Amino acid sequence: MPGVSLSADEKAEIARDLDAAAVDFVEAGSACTSAGERETISRVAGLGLDATVTSFARGVRADVDHALDCDVDGVNLVVPASDRHVETKVGSSREGVLERTIELVEYARDHGLWVEVLGEDGSRGDLEFLDRLSAVSMDAGAHRVCYCDTVGAASPERTAEVVSTLATHGPVSVHTHDDLGLANANVLAGLNAGADLVHATVNGVGERAGNVALEEVAVALERCYGVETLDLETLYRLARRVADATGVPLGANKAVVGDNAFAHESGIHTDGTLKDGRMYEPYPPETVGRERRLVLGKHAGRAGVKAALSEQDFDPDDDELDAIVARVKDLGDRGKRVTDADLRAVATDVLGKERERRVELLSLSATSGGDVPTASVRLRVEDEERTSAGTGSGPVDAAVEAVRTALGPDANAALESYHVDAVTGGTDAVVAVEVTMRRGDRTATVSAADADITRASVEAAVDALDRLLAEEAEATDGPGEVDARADGGRTTDGDRTTGDGSDADPAE
Amino acid sequence: MPGVSLSADEKAEIARDLDAAAVDFVEAGSACTSAGERETISRVAGLGLDATVTSFARGVRADVDHALDCDVDGVNLVVPASDRHVETKVGSSREGVLERTIELVEYARDHGLWVEVLGEDGSRGDLEFLDRLSAVSMDAGAHRVCYCDTVGAASPERTAEVVSTLATHGPVSVHTHDDLGLANANVLAGLNAGADLVHATVNGVGERAGNVALEEVAVALERCYGVETLDLETLYRLARRVADATGVPLGANKAVVGDNAFAHESGIHTDGTLKDGRMYEPYPPETVGRERRLVLGKHAGRAGVKAALSEQDFDPDDDELDAIVARVKDLGDRGKRVTDADLRAVATDVLGKERERRVELLSLSATSGGDVPTASVRLRVEDEERTSAGTGSGPVDAAVEAVRTALGPDANAALESYHVDAVTGGTDAVVAVEVTMRRGDRTATVSAADADITRASVEAAVDALDRLLAEEAEATDGPGEVDARADGGRTTDGDRTTGDGSDADPAE
Repeated sequence: MPGVSLSADEKAEIARDLDAAAVDFVEAGSACTSAGERETISRVAGLGLDATVTSFARGVRADVDHALDCDVDGVNLVVPASDRHVETKVGSSREGVLERTIELVEYARDHGLWVEVLGEDGSRGDLEFLDRLSAVSMDAGAHRVCYCDTVGAASPERTAEVVSTLATHGPVSVHTHDDLGLANANVLAGLNAGADLVHATVNGVGERAGNVALEEVAVALERCYGVETLDLETLYRLARRVADATGVPLGANKAVVGDNAFAHESGIHTDGTLKDGRMYEPYPPETVGRERRLVLGKHAGRAGVKAALSEQDFDPDDDELDAIVARVKDLGDRGKRVTDADLRAVATDVLGKERERRVELLSLSATSGGDVPTASVRLRVEDEERTSAGTGSGPVDAAVEAVRTALGPDANAALESYHVDAVTGGTDAVVAVEVTMRRGDRTATVSAADADITRASVEAAVDALDRLLAEEAEATDGPGEVDARADGGRTTDGDRTTGDGSDADPAE
Repeated sequence: MPGVSLSADEKAEIARDLDAAAVDFVEAGSACTSAGERETISRVAGLGLDATVTSFARGVRADVDHALDCDVDGVNLVVPASDRHVETKVGSSREGVLERTIELVEYARDHGLWVEVLGEDGSRGDLEFLDRLSAVSMDAGAHRVCYCDTVGAASPERTAEVVSTLATHGPVSVHTHDDLGLANANVLAGLNAGADLVHATVNGVGERAGNVALEEVAVALERCYGVETLDLETLYRLARRVADATGVPLGANKAVVGDNAFAHESGIHTDGTLKDGRMYEPYPPETVGRERRLVLGKHAGRAGVKAALSEQDFDPDDDELDAIVARVKDLGDRGKRVTDADLRAVATDVLGKERERRVELLSLSATSGGDVPTASVRLRVEDEERTSAGTGSGPVDAAVEAVRTALGPDANAALESYHVDAVTGGTDAVVAVEVTMRRGDRTATVSAADADITRASVEAAVDALDRLLAEEAEATDGPGEVDARADGGRTTDGDRTTGDGSDADPAE
């Protein structure tokens, strides 16, 4: 995938996770690329995985030799299969390709390798030539051939036609891309036509629109056809690891592993989900190692808002609840996402209940650009005013350090996670920050937004700390008071945002 | 979609774009949601679009009345169609649902509305009941019924089975979700089974894994089956508008409209693409209003690196080129994305060619957190040292203002765009910033990364300015010197990054 490059450590970790998920084959890289790539492939090959570890190889002997140097179990041998690739790219002829393929399959087999022959751009190739290529590959000793929709251009019908032809010669794999949004459809068509192995990538990363997503294939096969392939419960962890390693974030709507895949907002959706978890979900989120999320928004209903308020210890009467719901919908109408902080602000205003703050940020100053980014803060902690300074790798880091120093032993709290949304626009754009602080087994997550990233970050961190301390105090004030929740802010890992309602916007 | 809420202006602009793309129906919202939503729907209904404008409506008369208040052309009337929805959600019976549906279809028709009846959760419903629901709906005067895979749980086979049954009663629409990565597959299966209208959303936004993506359906139908539906050339502009309005970024690998959908990195891919544009693309990017992108990386080959260097006015001999290619691959092996700035640094080092800088940042100081974020900069401009200060909405904004002030008339340059990648991790994480400056009809884009966001932003802005001035000077130094390019850095809008090579890593 353009712009993505994994270190040897990252590849080894991902390979271990794939093995744990019960993936049968791991293509660890392309041995011809560079010495560094070969080191990485050797490392994966030496992990002792149950999976067969392979290297990608072009149809040249040097590539097979490079693969052998890495001590892999096998090669995915790519040869051109469409006339465009045979003639324009490689400058060869159909007969030339067939001869070279036979020679290389025999060479690889002679050296003890498992061999899969991939006919590149096969989906746009001539069926008669694909048929011959498969026949000679299997005759030469290949273990299987692979139907490649290299540019993601095929329909399910074309996929079925080619795969059923290839399958007359032996085991067939399918390799599909998502350029037309049909990667998974073509996998199913191929399997239905006789294929029995699927090339896939975690999260669907890959060239252009990507390869078919491993998690989508595995879940669709199990849910639609009862075909078990992988240990589905490991899929979300795997997806997170690959997203972190590649730096390619999971799209909000990405099937199976996206942030919203098990999130519910609109009124009837959440209302229905509260009545029966299966109402608006194709399968339980726990199936793939996840949890359900409920999100407030402009479609929020009374029941959802009430549930969200209750989680924040607000107990409005009917009139108060009406007033709060109206204001939440108004925020939604203005195009605003309603966070827990927004809801808290609205409720506090309507109910006149001001949370008593134990820690408050009085002032902040941070400098950056020089050698040592430096910050100072002035905090009120209970009734005491404290001032402190800190340094860090940047102004935010310095300011958070200053807060920690100012709190001293009270700040037996760690920064658990820090997230800044991408900013696009001008340098005066508002930056949204989300900070999670941990103290023992409690966490608090708070979002803040400001054109000044330092101020937003520190305000969120201090607010999170304050919530942790407040709820600890409540928990020890006496039994039966409130069921103090540590995650009074918004949690980041998808396990809960807010409940939702009953009286608006069903979805089709 | 959870967390997404569009303003009236945004909805109106999107509706106009949908109309321009030749979409036949625009569901403008759900009139029952709130007064604000009704205002928005009325606004869209009053735009005078060619498209039929509808409102979503539940199976209650008040919803139809709300839709009538908005003066829409029609309603998408949703009634429960699976036993889970009939009994658990609505607390009704099959007979009750049939009676209510007849009553509401007649009511809506009596009031002049176009009516589509959607059987919610139909994909999990009993086929005999779906058959009856469709029959009574059409008999009562509905214009069409819609097969709804509400939770994205159906296989293409199930979709075909249900749609072919419903189609015996009249026109059928298909409404699919992507929870199993099969949204588009199910659309095609449905159309093949007799449906003739598709419910889709731009970029596939929607509940959970989203609805089927409009652009994927339109492109797949035209490319695979020769069925023309929309004006495809408008699709990318539409996708950008919806991404901006919703705040839901386009996934890198999103089919058709993602950043990488027409990007090429690995050696053979770009080599092949240079020989024949169709080599690794399912269709020309211009089809959907886009351009091809070539990206350098660890798979870069000699040809690609040479092309990229040439675009930056470097002309290495063979040995020098070998040295540069080796170092680019080394950067890739270490997991680093190779930007133009990286390539320039490597080439400068290897060739000993130091670009003469006209503007240089000597020092920077920015404070934030207080009332007025303030910054000062010290710049060298030609041989003169200049110092200036500025204020802004945050430290970055203040520092960029200080740079503009320091340059005075020389800085007849505007900040064209500013982008910060999302940050996840600790407060000491490196922040990647991309700045585009414009001066007349020239733009320069430069990326920088630093744990200090202010420093990264200002360095990128100053470097971009310097490149603009340098290339202007070159352009006026005399003809035939070099073909000075304004976009010497990396361009953000996908039209070019760098060329790529010939000798590594073909892809399947």
